[in-house]
Amino acid sequence: MTNKPKYFVLDVDGVLSTGQFLYSDEGKVYKVFGAHDSDGLNLIKDSFNIMFITADKRGFEISKKRVSDMGYEISLVPSSERMSFIESLNFMEVIFMGDSYYDAEVFNHVNYAIAPKNARAEALNNADYVTESKAGEGAVMDACIHIMKKYLDKHN
Amino acid sequence: MTNKPKYFVLDVDGVLSTGQFLYSDEGKVYKVFGAHDSDGLNLIKDSFNIMFITADKRGFEISKKRVSDMGYEISLVPSSERMSFIESLNFMEVIFMGDSYYDAEVFNHVNYAIAPKNARAEALNNADYVTESKAGEGAVMDACIHIMKKYLDKHN
Amino acid sequence: MTNKPKYFVLDVDGVLSTGQFLYSDEGKVYKVFGAHDSDGLNLIKDSFNIMFITADKRGFEISKKRVSDMGYEISLVPSSERMSFIESLNFMEVIFMGDSYYDAEVFNHVNYAIAPKNARAEALNNADYVTESKAGEGAVMDACIHIMKKYLDKHN
Amino acid sequence: MTNKPKYFVLDVDGVLSTGQFLYSDEGKVYKVFGAHDSDGLNLIKDSFNIMFITADKRGFEISKKRVSDMGYEISLVPSSERMSFIESLNFMEVIFMGDSYYDAEVFNHVNYAIAPKNARAEALNNADYVTESKAGEGAVMDACIHIMKKYLDKHN
Repeated sequence: MTNKPKYFVLDVDGVLSTGQFLYSDEGKVYKVFGAHDSDGLNLIKDSFNIMFITADKRGFEISKKRVSDMGYEISLVPSSERMSFIESLNFMEVIFMGDSYYDAEVFNHVNYAIAPKNARAEALNNADYVTESKAGEGAVMDACIHIMKKYLDKHN
Repeated sequence: MTNKPKYFVLDVDGVLSTGQFLYSDEGKVYKVFGAHDSDGLNLIKDSFNIMFITADKRGFEISKKRVSDMGYEISLVPSSERMSFIESLNFMEVIFMGDSYYDAEVFNHVNYAIAPKNARAEALNNADYVTESKAGEGAVMDACIHIMKKYLDKHN
Repeated sequence: MTNKPKYFVLDVDGVLSTGQFLYSDEGKVYKVFGAHDSDGLNLIKDSFNIMFITADKRGFEISKKRVSDMGYEISLVPSSERMSFIESLNFMEVIFMGDSYYDAEVFNHVNYAIAPKNARAEALNNADYVTESKAGEGAVMDACIHIMKKYLDKHN
Repeated sequence: MTNKPKYFVLDVDGVLSTGQFLYSDEGKVYKVFGAHDSDGLNLIKDSFNIMFITADKRGFEISKKRVSDMGYEISLVPSSERMSFIESLNFMEVIFMGDSYYDAEVFNHVNYAIAPKNARAEALNNADYVTESKAGEGAVMDACIHIMKKYLDKHN
C-alpha cells in the first residue's frame, strides 16, 4: 500500500465535463457532463479531501452548480495561479487530474497525476495514469477506481 | 425457443440516453436521447412488461417525460435499492439492461443481462449480451431485436 | 450517364440530423444538425426535386424549421405509410436516403438507396451507397457529391 | 525559420466549433465549442493578426459572441466571396484554417493551409497541415502549437 496523499484535486472542463460547452448569442449557457463520475467520487470521498478547480471564469456558475450538486467544493483559479494553488496544498499531498496544455507542467510536481484519455498530448505524456474512458464518459469514475485500488484497502 | 421472462427492465441514463446531460447555472436541464430505440421497444412491447428504472433523482422529471412520451412507466429506485427492486419482480422473470458499476452485480442475478457497448467495463464483463451500438445510437433497438430473435417466434 | 430520377427524398432524423435530440422535463426541444449538408444540397437542387420526410410527430416543428430554413419542403409521414408515400412518387423516380430499421425495406423498391455510415445495420445491408461521413457530420453532403458524379455532368 | 505571414484567418463552424448546432422550433440557437482553443490562440496572438470569418448568416450572432468573448474579430463573408476576401489580405500573408468543400480551393492559394482532422475530404486533400484533434476537441490548439513551432522562435 502506497502512502495516501490527502487531496484529490480535479479540473472541471475536459475532466468532469466533456470539455465542450454550448454558446447562444448571449454567451456560454450549458456544459456537458456524464453519468458515472458521481458514483466514482462516492467510492473514495471518505478517504480523500476532494477539491475541484477551474480557470473558466465565464462558465464558473455552471461548473459550480454541477460540483455543488454532487456535494463538493470548487475554486476559481486562473491558469497562471494553478501551480501555486496546488503548491499551497503541498505537492506531495496531491493527486491531480487535469487535461490541458498547462496541466502538463503541474503533473511534474504533484504526487500523482491523472489524465483522461482525451487530454491534450502534452498532459498525456506527463501523466502517471491515463484513464480508459474519455471525459464525460466515465474518466473520473476510472480515476476513482484506480485510486481506490492503489491507495485504499479495497478492491472492486 | 428459450422460456420467456415476463419483464424487460431498463436503466435510463447511459442505456436509453447517451448518459450525458447538460447543466446550466440552474442545474440539470437536458438529457440526450436517440432515434431508433422507440422503434425497438414497439417490436416487443406486446410480449414483455417493459419497465424503466433510474437512480437519477435530479434528472427524474426529464427521464420521466421521455419514457412517458414513448408510453412506458418509470420508477425512481436508488442504487442501493436496485437489487431488491428487481428481486421483488423475481430475478428469473427479468431481462435487465444496465450500464453502471452497480449494475454489474445485478447482472449476476437476473435471468438475462444486456449492456450497451459503452457500458462500464464492470458491466460489460458480467453481461450476457453486449449491443453493437452505443447508448443513444440504437443500443436499446439492438437489445430489442436480440430479445425478439431469442425469445419470440419472429425473425428480422 | 445513368438515367436521372426526378426525386431525392431524405429522412430527417439520423440523416440530416445526428439522430439525437435533447429532452427537458417539458419534452423534445432540440435536434442536432451539422455544417456541410446545406452546401451539398445546393450542388444538386437545380437537377432534382428535393423532399424531406419524417415520422417524428413530436419533433416535427423542429425538423420543419431546419428544412424550411434551408429552403426545402418537409412532410410528416408515419413509418407505416412511408412505403406508399414513396410509391406514389413512382419508385423508379426516387433516390431515397434513410437510416432506420423500416427504411431497409423501402431500399429494396426505390431506384437508388443511400444510407449514412451510422445507419441501422438493416439499412446498411440494403443500401446501394453508404456515405463516408456520419449523419450530422456531412453524410448528406457525401450523398449529394455522389449523386452529382453519378447522375449529373459535373465532377468535383 | 520560415518567413512569417501576417494573418491567421480561421473559419468558425467545424474549425472553432464542432460544426454541429442545435435547432429548436424557432431556429438555430446553440453551437458547440471546446475547451483548449482559447489557450492556443493566446500562445500566438502577439505574433499574428488573428481573424475569424464565417458564411453562416443564421448563426452569426452566436459565432460573434464566442469569438468576441475570446477577444477577437469576426466577419460575415459569404462562401462566394471567401476567396476575394482572403485575396484582399494578400494570399501570401495568410495562414488559413478551414474545413469545407469550398475551402479546398482557397487552400491552393494561401501561404499555408490548415484543416482540422474532421474536415471534408476535399479540404484534407489540399491542406498543408492536418490537426491531430477534431474541431471542438482542440483542433485550433493543435494548429496554434504547429504555427508556433513553424514560425516563431518558441518550442513547447
